Parts: sequence; C-alpha cells; structure tokens
Amino acid sequence: MARIVQKFGGTSVADIGRIKSVAEHVKSEVDAGNQVAVVVSAMAGVTNHLVDWAGEIANLYDAREYDVVVATGEQITSGLLAMALQDLGVTARSWLGWQVPVNTDSTHGRARIERFDTTELERRLDNGEVPVLAGFQGVGTDNRITTLGRGGSDISAVALAAALGAERCDIFTDVDGIYTSDPRIVAKARKLDKITYEEMLEMASLGARVLHSRSIELAMKHGVCLQVRSCFDSVPGTLVVDGDDIVEQELVSGITYSRDEAKITLTRVPDRPGVAASIFGPLAEGSINVDMIVQNVSEDGRATDLTFTVAQADLEPALKVLEGKQGELGYAALNTDPNVVKVSVIGVGMRSHAGVAQMMFKTLAEKGINIQVISTSEIAVSVLIAEEYTELALRALHSAYQLDAV
Amino acid sequence: MARIVQKFGGTSVADIGRIKSVAEHVKSEVDAGNQVAVVVSAMAGVTNHLVDWAGEIANLYDAREYDVVVATGEQITSGLLAMALQDLGVTARSWLGWQVPVNTDSTHGRARIERFDTTELERRLDNGEVPVLAGFQGVGTDNRITTLGRGGSDISAVALAAALGAERCDIFTDVDGIYTSDPRIVAKARKLDKITYEEMLEMASLGARVLHSRSIELAMKHGVCLQVRSCFDSVPGTLVVDGDDIVEQELVSGITYSRDEAKITLTRVPDRPGVAASIFGPLAEGSINVDMIVQNVSEDGRATDLTFTVAQADLEPALKVLEGKQGELGYAALNTDPNVVKVSVIGVGMRSHAGVAQMMFKTLAEKGINIQVISTSEIAVSVLIAEEYTELALRALHSAYQLDAV
Repeated sequence: MARIVQKFGGTSVADIGRIKSVAEHVKSEVDAGNQVAVVVSAMAGVTNHLVDWAGEIANLYDAREYDVVVATGEQITSGLLAMALQDLGVTARSWLGWQVPVNTDSTHGRARIERFDTTELERRLDNGEVPVLAGFQGVGTDNRITTLGRGGSDISAVALAAALGAERCDIFTDVDGIYTSDPRIVAKARKLDKITYEEMLEMASLGARVLHSRSIELAMKHGVCLQVRSCFDSVPGTLVVDGDDIVEQELVSGITYSRDEAKITLTRVPDRPGVAASIFGPLAEGSINVDMIVQNVSEDGRATDLTFTVAQADLEPALKVLEGKQGELGYAALNTDPNVVKVSVIGVGMRSHAGVAQMMFKTLAEKGINIQVISTSEIAVSVLIAEEYTELALRALHSAYQLDAV
Repeated sequence: MARIVQKFGGTSVADIGRIKSVAEHVKSEVDAGNQVAVVVSAMAGVTNHLVDWAGEIANLYDAREYDVVVATGEQITSGLLAMALQDLGVTARSWLGWQVPVNTDSTHGRARIERFDTTELERRLDNGEVPVLAGFQGVGTDNRITTLGRGGSDISAVALAAALGAERCDIFTDVDGIYTSDPRIVAKARKLDKITYEEMLEMASLGARVLHSRSIELAMKHGVCLQVRSCFDSVPGTLVVDGDDIVEQELVSGITYSRDEAKITLTRVPDRPGVAASIFGPLAEGSINVDMIVQNVSEDGRATDLTFTVAQADLEPALKVLEGKQGELGYAALNTDPNVVKVSVIGVGMRSHAGVAQMMFKTLAEKGINIQVISTSEIAVSVLIAEEYTELALRALHSAYQLDAV
C-alpha cells in the first residue's frame, strides 16, 4: 500500500465527462489498495472567465477580492469530483484551503504556503476516504482566501505530497511526459523515463511549460517524487527525481527553445567602469528582466558594443527607458531585433563532461547558423540565433547529442 | 444616520454593467450618511449553471458537495461588488458565510441560520466600511459550507438586518414594489406604499413570487422593516411592516392568483367517520400537499363527493396513490381537472369587517363565474374557478374592492 497524491489540471477536468473519467482514474488507484489524495485545478476556461470579470469591473482591483473571485474555480471542481467519486462508490469529500487549513502568508494573488496541516486528512486517508483538495488556494493570516499564483495547483499538490510523506505525486496534464525536445518540431523526440529536478528546473525556465519552477523547487526541497503523465491514457509518464536516483545519467537530456526573446544592441558605449550598471540599473528599476548579456571587446579601448535580451513584452518599455538616457549613457545607436530564439541544451551530465558546449557550436556552424549571444549555467548552454533557424537548429542538435528515437 | 441592509437579487447583478450600477446605488446611500451592509445573490443564470453541473455529474448527489459547488455563485458576486465599490472610492470588503460566521444547522441544501455573529461587521460599519455579504450561504456545525435553500439570499438579508438592528432592509429586485394585483393582467393595479407582514405572507403563499415566505416570517418575528424596490430606478418601493405601523388599514390590499392547481374529485365516497383520513393519509405519506378541500353534504347519508386540489406537479403522483386504493376507499369514480385557478382576496381588514367574502361571491356570480371550491383563512378568501375566467375574475374583483388606480 502506497500513499499517492494525484493532481488534475484544467484540461483534465474541462467538462463533466472528463471529471467522470478523472474519477475512474482515482478509483483504479484506490482499487489497487493505495491511499489517494487528489488536488484539482479549475475547469479549463473557468479561471480565465473569472479573471476577465475582475478586469472588467475595475482597472485597479483589490488582490484580496480577486482571490475571493478566482478561487471559486477550484472550489467548483473539488465539489463536482467528490460527487463523481461517490457515484462510483468511493468515499470522498472536497476540502477548501480554509478547511484543511492550508495556511499561507497574506501576499494575495501569489501567496506562499507556510503551513499545511494534514492531521485530519491523514486520519481520513487511514479510514479509506479520498480527500479532494481545491488547488491554487489557501487561507491568509487575516482569515481571507489567498491564491498561490501561476502554477498554483501544482504547488498545492507538491506541498500536500510533502506534508503527507507521499510516495509519489502524479501530475496529470495534457501531455504524457517530458520529452527530449518539442515533439511538434522534432519528430524524433523521445519521452524521458526519468529526469532530475535540476534539469526540469532549467527546462521550465527555458521554455518548456509543463511544470512551473516553484512547484519543481518545492519538490526538490522536500524530495517529492513527481510523475508527469497524461490523463487521457494509463501509460507511465516521466518521473522527476533526485539525480542520485538515476543510475545511468544521460549527458544531455533535452533541447529547449524560447521564442519569447528580443535582442537589444547599444553601439559604441563608452568603455569605462560602471557603464553596465548605469544601463542595467534603470532597466531593473522599471521591473524589466534582462536575460542574456554579451559585451564585445573594445577595439580602440574607448567604446564597445553591448548586446542583451529581454522578454518580448518588455521590449517597448526597455526602449523607452534607454532612449530617455541616451545623453547620459553616451551610446551611438540603439538597434533591436525581435526575430530571435534562444535554444538551450540541458543535461546534468555536462557537469562532469567537457565538450558539450563545443558540440553545440560545431553543430550550428555546420548548418551555417550564426550564434549571436551565448550564456551558460552549470547544467545548460544557451545560444541566441535568428528565429528562422529554430527548427533546423533543434533537429540538428537533437541528432548531434544522440537523442533521436531509434 | 441610519443603518440599512440592501439586498440585490440575481437580475440586479446579472452582468458586470449591472454590478457597477448596484455599486452606485450603494454609494448614494453611503453618501447620504448611512451605514450600509449589502447582501448579494449569484449573478442571474450562474446558479442554474452550477445546479445543472451537479445534476449531470451524478443522479443522487451529496448535499454537502452540492453546497460547495452552488455557494460559489454568491462568492463571485460578493468579490466583484466589493471591487466595484472600491473603484468608486467606497471602503468595502466581501464576507463569506464561514468568515462572518453565519452559523447554521447542518441540513445541507436548506439549512437554518442558528447564529449570526455581527461583532466584526458592526465594528467595520462604525468605521465607515461597507460589508458585502455573500447571501444564501452559511457554515454548518461540521465547518462545511451550507446553503439556505430557495429564497436564501432574502433570508440572509433579513437575518443580517435583524442581527444589526437595521432601520430598514431593502430588497432590490426586478419589480418596483408589491401591487394590488398582477399588473400584467390588471392594468389598473396600484403599487402599495405599505403592506403588513401577514398580508405579504398570504401573497407569497398564494402566488406572488417577490419574496419567499421564510424571509417574511423571519422579518415578522424580528420586526425588520422590509422595502421591496427596483434596482433599475430610485423611486420608493413597498414597505412590508407590522400592522400597527399602518394607520389607515385597507379592507383588502390585494388580489392574487395561482395557476399551479389541479382539482381531483372522488365521487360517491362512503360517508363514514375516518374516510377523509384514509384518503389524505396516503397522500401525505407520498409527500403530496393537499391544498383546498370540500366535501359535499351527503344526500342519502351513505355516500358523498370529495373534491380537493394539489399542485400541478403532484397530480400524476396523487392519481397513482388513489387508483391503487380504489378497492379500499370504495369510491365510484375519480375525476380530474387541471384547468383551474385559485383566486384569493387578501386583507388584514377583513378581521374586523364582515361582508368581504360575500362581496367576492357576488362579484363572481354577476360575471357568471362558477365557484368550485372555497377556502378561507383569517385574512384571505380563496376560490377555485375555471382557468379561462382568470383575467375576468381578477379585473372584476379589483374594481369591486375599489383597488383600481384612479
């Protein structure tokens, strides 16, 4: 007998028919003799609808009232799934954040869980009951409803699994696992059986949208074994685990990409100490995140070119900030290019193996793809290239690192 | 400065635009220097949608989970209205049943309020804040969400007004007050300035659908002055008050009708003691409410005809019960007529004035309308007539009792 947390996302519970199939999924795990706790998202579309209403009613709204409104989405699903389970003869009941309670801080709209009291849930699990927790929500220090922000239901599920000491936390979504690359582009992409938390984190931050970074960090911190799997079939998904649990470490486990990049180049910036701070300081004050940065070597020792990237949505705000400071910064011209893509090679194996980055540069050079910016982390190498080469680069790299399905 | 409760029904908050006008209504009362507490229903259509989902997910569902699902409707409105009020510069916040708390028994789906703790609400009212209470909901003894059943938001509003000792409880709805008769039929119907609780109760049970009996009973018990008024304009509505507060008591204040009646006649029932009990007992066991009853005088002392009415929806079930017992009951034939209407004359004045019923019989006789069954209460006289005479009877009675607008 194992204790398992199952989390069902918005597409898994999109309508009454799907909620009924989710109930069947849960029942089969119960019938196998396991203790099962369930976490649900809002039915697909419901949250957007509620968010739209909030936006229509006021331009600037109270985050506390926003939470009251949007938390209803998960509340509805939890009640409906409890009914569907009971209809199949499974003892079940819904739990709202304030009932458990899931205590959070009072940062409404993106609260952090501070305490997850599972005393009563454990008592009921031991009696064979299935708790159906409304994800994404908690209760703040002022006894008001809070929501956890993006990826909130995943966070609820991981926190519940950690508090229960669950053997596994299954994240049911609309894909059946984590792939070596985007299967829509790379036909030979393979589903991974296992991946490390670190790699999954890099993937999440570098463009793969299956799990939000916060839930992965939480799982890593508490050693919760995650499984990403599909609610539409019963094949095993991808396990996200500690590196030590993977005996044969792959050198590289995935190639990701992000089109949400825009390149900004400042030409002939005076080459003196403190110039980078004088450029990036004002951007940070404007809440603009700068991602990749490259500074060319100055040829004459007087002026240099500085290139960096921001998210697409931040391009216009960044230009406003920089244009207003041309006199102060003293650059000659400001060039922008939104048609770029960041391609990343990810793998914990590169910690102990040299040559991973070199393989990437060589492969792209062979295809005639110019690398505009390079950045690296401990387990990833990223390059910025022209967007039109996205597919070519992904497929070439996927083959070069021997990730292709045979 | 007065303390006022304002309750807004589903059509008043049907969409974002209407919620914004409701906020204006509330603001104008606040600007007039009053302390205002608000109670809201779900946006029109939302509750039906949620009820449909519950019905689709399971045939027999857990009333506790049903309450979790349907209570979200009022929760959404309370959050949105609080935002709209803040947008107008009014300090406001939403309150859910469990936050106040509104303690109820645990009869899910039709819970009764046991305790309404307004300590915190009063403190905030004194500080100029507008509490926006989600109507229809409370919290049961097991810390689970309960709902109050039909007319639940009105009950929440009256209970809040009673607990706050409010000067008035305004019920905003899609009609602008209580009329002497249905204005769609009687063109000369007048809006009443005042009506007594007793009359309003009779009207509610005799077909007028503006307020549910439970909320009127509660208002009467606690002496809460109700005002039924329209959310679409600012003219005064109808006050529902104690009889002592009305100096000039009208003899008759309204003529109502109900088409939800079906007539059943059992012919030649043996005329012996206990026969009525043997007929109505099995109907009561089948949860069938019998309304009007008339038993003709037996001509030969051996058998009599028995006529009574049930709600339209109960006609088929009632026939099943009675047909199964023909041998035992010993009646000759069972005749039914669904094409009947109950017309009632209501007025507390008839307690002290004779001749009210006689006026009714005479007026109907003059128009050639045959009375099939008569029943009376302390402040109402009701007759059953053929449905085709509804309009004729209502208009004739309205004139006869001098209710016509001049």
